[in-house]
Amino acid sequence: MGIEIERKFLVRGDGWRQAARAPLPMRQGYLAAGGPKEPSVRIRIAGAAALLTVKGPGGKVRAEFEYAIPVADAEAMLALSPFATLAKTRWEVAFAGHLWTVDEFAAPASLAGLVLAEVELDSEEVDPDLPDWLGAEVTEDPRYSNAALVAALRPGQGPG
Amino acid sequence: MGIEIERKFLVRGDGWRQAARAPLPMRQGYLAAGGPKEPSVRIRIAGAAALLTVKGPGGKVRAEFEYAIPVADAEAMLALSPFATLAKTRWEVAFAGHLWTVDEFAAPASLAGLVLAEVELDSEEVDPDLPDWLGAEVTEDPRYSNAALVAALRPGQGPG
Repeated sequence: MGIEIERKFLVRGDGWRQAARAPLPMRQGYLAAGGPKEPSVRIRIAGAAALLTVKGPGGKVRAEFEYAIPVADAEAMLALSPFATLAKTRWEVAFAGHLWTVDEFAAPASLAGLVLAEVELDSEEVDPDLPDWLGAEVTEDPRYSNAALVAALRPGQGPG
Repeated sequence: MGIEIERKFLVRGDGWRQAARAPLPMRQGYLAAGGPKEPSVRIRIAGAAALLTVKGPGGKVRAEFEYAIPVADAEAMLALSPFATLAKTRWEVAFAGHLWTVDEFAAPASLAGLVLAEVELDSEEVDPDLPDWLGAEVTEDPRYSNAALVAALRPGQGPG
């Protein structure tokens, strides 16, 4: 078991692109989309690796359990998911001593063009300098979890 | 990935007890309870081992993905589950060339006393002899999946 401490922001403009490196295409889907009080179960395929990840509810601080699984299992479980599979490219952007990840969404179509930035922190007390291409912070806004983004596309589910 | 081929029955009377051996206490809970068209995600602690298992929808034949995980992770994930944790003792009963498992439920309180029997089969064509202590077959009755049994205890969820 681990604890993930993370802040998340909207991104405005393309200022981040000049420092972006190591693009990693990812596809991911959910077996449970979670919610304000419920855990999510994510299947992710990133390059040649696949992960099954359970995250507890929460915003900045969440329980996280992550297991490497065979890519073939991940593909089969994505096919079982009741939610849309999400595709995005993850970029790394170093800024003021922290490594930011910028996710550029490609699919499903309704999310194409969305860009979100995250930074993982070693403790809740760490207060990173914020690059000027960040928009509003959405760390505690449950609508911007990737799980909620795909759950919202499903009629009758998600934060709407 | 695997495929689980299994038949499930209610149990009537105590005729199975004379041949029952190897009692194994189990606790299990769900991060996703699944449904007629949705996968379930199960956390199980059995003795000193813990498993995270994803099962596809279905009755007799289901996709199954199973991963060994640390017991401490399993305990923490059970605590995150939105559903009741189920406790049962699993017994093995050999009959006519097949190994039956008989599950005697102990918790939650509303399931205490429920007894279900299952047999795993190598193929859909295998037609096992049925012991006379079996009641009705519930293989294709989604109410009798362990996931549905605990989901039904949650207001507004499950098959009711």
